[in-house]
Amino acid sequence: MSMSKYIMLHHGAGAREMWNIIEALIISKVPTKLRKLPRGAGIDVLDDGAVIPISDNEYLVLSVDSYTVNPIFFPGGNIGHLAVNGTINDLVVMGAEPKAFMDTIIVEEGFPLSDLEIIINSMLKALKNEGIALIGGDFKVMPKGSIDKVVITGVGIGITDKPIIDKDIKPGDKIIVTSPIAEHGAAILAAQLGLLDEVKNLRSDSRPLSRTLLPLIKKYKKYVHAARDPTRGGIAAVLNEWVRSSNFSITIHRDKVPIREDVKAFLEAMGIDPLSMASEGSAVLAVDGVVAEEFVKELRSRGEDYATIIGEVTKPDSEILRGRVLAITEIGGKIILEPKSVNLPRIC
Amino acid sequence: MSMSKYIMLHHGAGAREMWNIIEALIISKVPTKLRKLPRGAGIDVLDDGAVIPISDNEYLVLSVDSYTVNPIFFPGGNIGHLAVNGTINDLVVMGAEPKAFMDTIIVEEGFPLSDLEIIINSMLKALKNEGIALIGGDFKVMPKGSIDKVVITGVGIGITDKPIIDKDIKPGDKIIVTSPIAEHGAAILAAQLGLLDEVKNLRSDSRPLSRTLLPLIKKYKKYVHAARDPTRGGIAAVLNEWVRSSNFSITIHRDKVPIREDVKAFLEAMGIDPLSMASEGSAVLAVDGVVAEEFVKELRSRGEDYATIIGEVTKPDSEILRGRVLAITEIGGKIILEPKSVNLPRIC
Repeated sequence: MSMSKYIMLHHGAGAREMWNIIEALIISKVPTKLRKLPRGAGIDVLDDGAVIPISDNEYLVLSVDSYTVNPIFFPGGNIGHLAVNGTINDLVVMGAEPKAFMDTIIVEEGFPLSDLEIIINSMLKALKNEGIALIGGDFKVMPKGSIDKVVITGVGIGITDKPIIDKDIKPGDKIIVTSPIAEHGAAILAAQLGLLDEVKNLRSDSRPLSRTLLPLIKKYKKYVHAARDPTRGGIAAVLNEWVRSSNFSITIHRDKVPIREDVKAFLEAMGIDPLSMASEGSAVLAVDGVVAEEFVKELRSRGEDYATIIGEVTKPDSEILRGRVLAITEIGGKIILEPKSVNLPRIC
Repeated sequence: MSMSKYIMLHHGAGAREMWNIIEALIISKVPTKLRKLPRGAGIDVLDDGAVIPISDNEYLVLSVDSYTVNPIFFPGGNIGHLAVNGTINDLVVMGAEPKAFMDTIIVEEGFPLSDLEIIINSMLKALKNEGIALIGGDFKVMPKGSIDKVVITGVGIGITDKPIIDKDIKPGDKIIVTSPIAEHGAAILAAQLGLLDEVKNLRSDSRPLSRTLLPLIKKYKKYVHAARDPTRGGIAAVLNEWVRSSNFSITIHRDKVPIREDVKAFLEAMGIDPLSMASEGSAVLAVDGVVAEEFVKELRSRGEDYATIIGEVTKPDSEILRGRVLAITEIGGKIILEPKSVNLPRIC
């Protein structure tokens, strides 16, 4: 693997360059037995959270993410709102009930206290709505110029009797997307480009999935073989990670992927594939074909009106498709869907 | 409480201004029942970690801290080394055996990969030395100019059958300091001032306390009423937090506080009280008078040659001392020791 001598933006973009650097600098250097706790899951699987068994049939799920989004206030939310919802969703897609939260807030000297208060109030409201306890944290101030405004780290603590660890996909599983994709990424991109006045209908989908999706993941737990919230890198990154180390392939139909017209038009104009763009209120799942239709129906009855099966896990019919994602285009073409580093830093 | 309209450096300095802002913006707004998990400890006590009961006699202890130290390489360590050791020590002073670690690394675009590698290798070595598993993390890149080099957040996961929650101090408890104080703060200050060439013997004490202190905390667990690693704000901040909401007082003898001559001379020249300066390899404890001497003796036999009793918890003999710390000076004077905001950002 060749690497630049300096950290570049694509090293943090959620696609192959990021996994390569994490593998080279970190994972490959950790002894196998220190990659997880006994019977748990850690960096041995690249999932949204770590799993710690706490009794014969109970697991603690822990997640950690740093939120660096720019701008910190955006249509549909703010960095505090995003940090809590993003953390909740990381637990939900692991099959865990969110129970507690810890945070660190790093603020730039000179930052307006009133803005910090809005951000913190958003966090506390999002926690309170879900009955999640705030059990610890850290607060640091950095001198002016050494950090841009605010960075928040969220630690999520959840409980489950059956963690969904994304290593069990198998042929026949249907790929489900729960709601229109790329909403968050499109809104942040428009904000960064100063285009919010022109493209008024873009709005982050930042929201918790604990009410709509979690009950179904719990109900169908033995049929849910993988679940992820497609943030950095979008669903292209998630699907590629799922097949990367397997013998299978995933085929999706682009015209089935739920996406709002406004979002699609804006991203097309920008030359960005929505499949590589971040969502913050959507999930992608691999669900056993036996129950997938039912799963989607129930998602819709819970208010996820755009939940859809977009494809399935297959045994590849040619060697080139093994461990890869095949996208059938709107006009019937077949294209290998690669994970892409969209050059859009500070998206989450 | 009056507050500035903008975040200022002292809001992050570990003393009263910081606790005031955290109380005003966060703690006071969280409903009481969401300040901890049932039977656990959370933001209802201001301690180094949160406590989650996982069985009748086992508790998980979780800590989170963001490390923003500047410079990132300093005599005695680097930001990665500090993030792991600081996290370990937060667990140790809660009485917990460190078991697992998660991190987030935020790097500035353009940062040299070779430096990042040194930092990460230090982290991994520190974890490996203690047999601590790395079970998760996050990696973000921020554009040049939006973060100064590297910020690391450490999440510690430990186990204990008896968490040390700092709310049980009582008269007769002896205050023990385990090793010379203010070493880390002095080294960072000298580095920030560009004085490392002149004051050569300053060196951070960043190191894990899991070998020397933890076995004794476990052995004497029912006698250890409080324990803390005095980082931001130093032992002045810790002792004040301990008595702040109690009816007691703490009396310490300044001449008994272990401190190296080099460190003392440098800080005196800078006009800074070492009692307000950060350590990263020392701890302060309130231990029942019945076993305190023995505790110190055993600490010394384990290599903590400078472990010392510096004072004790008392029933205040005048109202003015209630909830305050009294320092007997080297010449016998009596001074109220206030927590001070040393104007030294990015110390940890």
